Amino acid sequence: MTESTDHCKITFQPHNKTVSAAPGTNLLRVAMNAGIHVNASCAGEGVCGKCRVIQEDGEIKGGITERLSAEDIEKGYRLACHSEITSDITIRIPVESDIDAGELAALSPPRCTAAIQHMDIDSLKEQGLFINPVKKTYLELPPPTTGDNLSDIGRIIRSLKEKADWHKLEFTIPVIREIPDILRESDFKVTTTLVRPVRDNGKTRVTNVQSGDTTSENYAIAMDIGTTTVYGQLVNLQTGKIIAEKGLVNGQISYGEDVISRIVFAEKGDGLEQLQQAIIKTINEILDAIFKKSGGDRDNVSTITIAGNTTMTQLLLGINPRYIRRAPYVPAATLYPPFLAERIGINLNEHTIALLYPEISSYVGGDIVAGIMGSGLYRTDELTLYMDIGTNAEIVIGNKDWLACAACSAGPAFEGGGVEFGMRAAKGAIEDFLIDPLSLEPMVVTIGDVRPKGICGSGLITMIAIMFEMGVIDSSGKFNREIKTERIRQRNDVWEYVVAWQQDSQIDRDISLSEIDIDNLIRAKAAIYSGCETLLEEVGLSMDMIEHIILAGGFGSYIDLEKAMTIGLLPEIDPTKVTYLGNGSLLGARMSSLTNRIRKDVVEVTKKMTNFELSETPSYMDHYVAAMFIPHTDVNTFPKLKQRMDARKGLN
Amino acid sequence: MTESTDHCKITFQPHNKTVSAAPGTNLLRVAMNAGIHVNASCAGEGVCGKCRVIQEDGEIKGGITERLSAEDIEKGYRLACHSEITSDITIRIPVESDIDAGELAALSPPRCTAAIQHMDIDSLKEQGLFINPVKKTYLELPPPTTGDNLSDIGRIIRSLKEKADWHKLEFTIPVIREIPDILRESDFKVTTTLVRPVRDNGKTRVTNVQSGDTTSENYAIAMDIGTTTVYGQLVNLQTGKIIAEKGLVNGQISYGEDVISRIVFAEKGDGLEQLQQAIIKTINEILDAIFKKSGGDRDNVSTITIAGNTTMTQLLLGINPRYIRRAPYVPAATLYPPFLAERIGINLNEHTIALLYPEISSYVGGDIVAGIMGSGLYRTDELTLYMDIGTNAEIVIGNKDWLACAACSAGPAFEGGGVEFGMRAAKGAIEDFLIDPLSLEPMVVTIGDVRPKGICGSGLITMIAIMFEMGVIDSSGKFNREIKTERIRQRNDVWEYVVAWQQDSQIDRDISLSEIDIDNLIRAKAAIYSGCETLLEEVGLSMDMIEHIILAGGFGSYIDLEKAMTIGLLPEIDPTKVTYLGNGSLLGARMSSLTNRIRKDVVEVTKKMTNFELSETPSYMDHYVAAMFIPHTDVNTFPKLKQRMDARKGLN
Repeated sequence: MTESTDHCKITFQPHNKTVSAAPGTNLLRVAMNAGIHVNASCAGEGVCGKCRVIQEDGEIKGGITERLSAEDIEKGYRLACHSEITSDITIRIPVESDIDAGELAALSPPRCTAAIQHMDIDSLKEQGLFINPVKKTYLELPPPTTGDNLSDIGRIIRSLKEKADWHKLEFTIPVIREIPDILRESDFKVTTTLVRPVRDNGKTRVTNVQSGDTTSENYAIAMDIGTTTVYGQLVNLQTGKIIAEKGLVNGQISYGEDVISRIVFAEKGDGLEQLQQAIIKTINEILDAIFKKSGGDRDNVSTITIAGNTTMTQLLLGINPRYIRRAPYVPAATLYPPFLAERIGINLNEHTIALLYPEISSYVGGDIVAGIMGSGLYRTDELTLYMDIGTNAEIVIGNKDWLACAACSAGPAFEGGGVEFGMRAAKGAIEDFLIDPLSLEPMVVTIGDVRPKGICGSGLITMIAIMFEMGVIDSSGKFNREIKTERIRQRNDVWEYVVAWQQDSQIDRDISLSEIDIDNLIRAKAAIYSGCETLLEEVGLSMDMIEHIILAGGFGSYIDLEKAMTIGLLPEIDPTKVTYLGNGSLLGARMSSLTNRIRKDVVEVTKKMTNFELSETPSYMDHYVAAMFIPHTDVNTFPKLKQRMDARKGLN
Repeated sequence: MTESTDHCKITFQPHNKTVSAAPGTNLLRVAMNAGIHVNASCAGEGVCGKCRVIQEDGEIKGGITERLSAEDIEKGYRLACHSEITSDITIRIPVESDIDAGELAALSPPRCTAAIQHMDIDSLKEQGLFINPVKKTYLELPPPTTGDNLSDIGRIIRSLKEKADWHKLEFTIPVIREIPDILRESDFKVTTTLVRPVRDNGKTRVTNVQSGDTTSENYAIAMDIGTTTVYGQLVNLQTGKIIAEKGLVNGQISYGEDVISRIVFAEKGDGLEQLQQAIIKTINEILDAIFKKSGGDRDNVSTITIAGNTTMTQLLLGINPRYIRRAPYVPAATLYPPFLAERIGINLNEHTIALLYPEISSYVGGDIVAGIMGSGLYRTDELTLYMDIGTNAEIVIGNKDWLACAACSAGPAFEGGGVEFGMRAAKGAIEDFLIDPLSLEPMVVTIGDVRPKGICGSGLITMIAIMFEMGVIDSSGKFNREIKTERIRQRNDVWEYVVAWQQDSQIDRDISLSEIDIDNLIRAKAAIYSGCETLLEEVGLSMDMIEHIILAGGFGSYIDLEKAMTIGLLPEIDPTKVTYLGNGSLLGARMSSLTNRIRKDVVEVTKKMTNFELSETPSYMDHYVAAMFIPHTDVNTFPKLKQRMDARKGLN
């Protein structure tokens, strides 16, 4: 947790543990983040009434429901899930809610999320990586005379050459078409938009000529086309700042949730065309929103840089993706030429150039390459593991000298798929979890602090890690049959743990986590972990050499690093060496919008990046089988966890 | 006349002059070409009955009409205009038709047209000027396997690089879109079409990938867009041969005859769009005809190279031409980038690249530049004068080291405009003319050998030259008032010569040539001649230094060189040093289709070519005034004519 002067100090007793939190934070969350267990099944609606705490030396806001008697209230009892921090305070966890503040619970490290990696344009500039790809130049041209009746284009070129060493200038027909009238309407005072070549000996393209001085409005669009969500940003090319942004659900979602179902749809009738139209519509809606929000003018947008996975890219371009899903999984192309955005129906002016992030293979796409560029991984000395866990998981390992990548068939478990009560990270999803080591009663925190609907990926990881550390499940993910609690039960011959009873949940059933669910998650994490191991082995390295982990994608932001290491999804490294990139694809797209250096480097990066088809790499299956345990067959590769497990054994 | 073994020998008596002619040639034409005068007003319909000749030692076909009595026919009399040559023969011109075979007539040199300059692809190859811009390469690709699942484009690139040092290959989105299916339908046996860059460090563009081996079908389209007529050719890029060609009237003609009236139309309402649509329609009709004729497939056409004047080019592209006709006469651009032909509606496949010949100025356009390239003028050591006399006249002077050009406001006199009975070179146009030096009776030859309708440009030149040499008009173009013949008369206070009486013509009036007509022609030729003089003076040279004349355009093919020199349109040089290029614009377009060397050179040529606005060049008006005589104020610059004139004075 970050310390800040305007934060409140909350001291938990009898633990005698002090943490800080921003005013307004839900008290249950504060306890959770401090690793303090409070029984809490309903996650914030005061239904279960179990999260009773006592306020001492201070006041909290709320926390009073009909579950508390007047006498309780008088004594200072509050329901943690209904309480908000407003000032420094001491909170006592009553005996019935906290089983003796046991040392067992203390063994579980507090929640730890990755630090956010921000894009730093000034640092790019310092490193000489900032080469603005679009330059606007204002010209006051001498009007033509009989003695100087150069063509209109010739006049502009002459003036540009006088101003700077612009050579090899190229005009497009649509621009030439507009120039004669624009020059005369503006009294020969115009602003030219010059798109610089990425290659040193390329041509500078004059993409626009506008009346008057418009040099201050020089924009680009960055866009990430995800299978589920599409994000767009309007970027100011002078400042690097985001002027407006918008995210929308990919309109293709109604034709299928994942890439495979989209490809299947594209193969039928005019499915490809429908999918192309759907994504174009989404893009155009995002653009409309961005321009409405910012008041920006489409005429000042020179480029749109788009990053997406291979299937999204091919669908956007109307390229049949059928061979992506069929062995040997061949994409149409990996490098696409720039083209005019309006040619595929994107609602931008006819001069706006669309740039697509290159792909590596059918399952390591432009979104990953964009992340590699955006994160700067390709420039680092440190051996870095880049991981994007979405519908599919892609991993990249390497540094400035080499890069290896692979797609892992992790399945959708981390996004809640293949898990009975799994769900996306939306309101009501259990995202954090503690368990009372003696009563085995849960403490759940949900997104939105409402009664639980299901469990999202980060919740699953935490839940399994906690249950493993508490000895509720063993290293193969099976429940300890000897534990007697009504929360552990058999249903349809499958063992499960009830996370929330029906009455504490938002659904008409108990929410539980079964051995099948756990097995799915173990398979998923094993696929990823063994993928990393395989890549490293192929280049003669091993997991313990990883110096930095970059987590990209929506999933990475919620993940509790210690828990992810506990279950063996991530290798055990110093959590401060793990950074969260957020939407790496969008970040990379924005960076390519801002500097030609990235556009140039990306071609080298794609050449440098070796793709491994894990299914074709013999050692992968061995690694996979070995990783099918919590945390791993070889627990020695997770020394901190081993230490905690040994300590726990000593306690038991 | 060219001698050939299958030609007939025709001997004229009493001149004792033998010439040869192809079987089937009209006898009147043979006489005309031989410089033998035969009275002939009706030019081929036997109406006037004046062209009586006697066949001796041989037979002619036809020549018998009701104008001849049975007795005449028996004696061998025939009407020359109705007779066809079939074998060697002697023809006697009877006394009443030929005034003593006078020496005066003999002073007029026989008809002399320019030799045709052919394009010689073998010579280009020998000179290293042949760099095929489009290469088709057949590939048998190894199908992808799990161990080799490169992208489809990557697979093609790898194979191309193995075959040759193809680097910097660029695919377009439409091609990428088609490739996945084509590869699999063709069992990975495909032909790639590679468009080589003009610049050495440019990218090679893969514009097409076709199933199977289509390397033998590698075509280009060459097109000349004239103000009046549009010509297209389908060219085989392997052999350089023309496979099919077609000419059609420019569909814009219904909106105006010349460029100025087209520009005026373009400025009104949707006039520009209408004109653009009209020319696209004409182009598409030509393409339809060409592909129908040849059976060729549009898919095998990689480029269309288009040459046209500046206005035609801007109208084709939909660029407002209003500033072309307004001082200071500024074109939108002179150099245009390549673009996809289908983008402006040309009915070619979506990969076909359109290349436009660059312009020099508003009135020296791509048609002229194409002629300079096609004629090889830019590579010659000889000081050469290139002349394209159409609706307007453009002149280029120079050699491999320098080039100067100008447009002359010659007006349309050479195309029959501004001349009362002037007409285009069509059926019924008087194209050749002799005059009996004593009776002043004319001998006219028309296109199509029909009764005259009017006088075309080459006919006008010949008529004025003949009348000048016969003393019928003086050097200022005025009729000799002392000559007594009913053919020279005053009408509406203007002196004129009746070329054909109403009954001998196809129109309901006498066809005549007036002093106003002659004055218009003198102004036209003076504008051109003085233009040449001005250009030469500007570079420190003079007319007598010209070593070679190239005549381009439809007009040049009919022109009688000696007559053109007599009136002072051309400087007096050895007629064998005058060549006729034909449609130089189309030739240049074809050459650019065939070799990248020309495409590369043309950029240098446009840089090298200095445009002179004659109206802005002070010496032009002096030269113009001096040239307003037949042949010129300074007759010493026409020494051969002076010699003939001196000889005639001696005779008179």
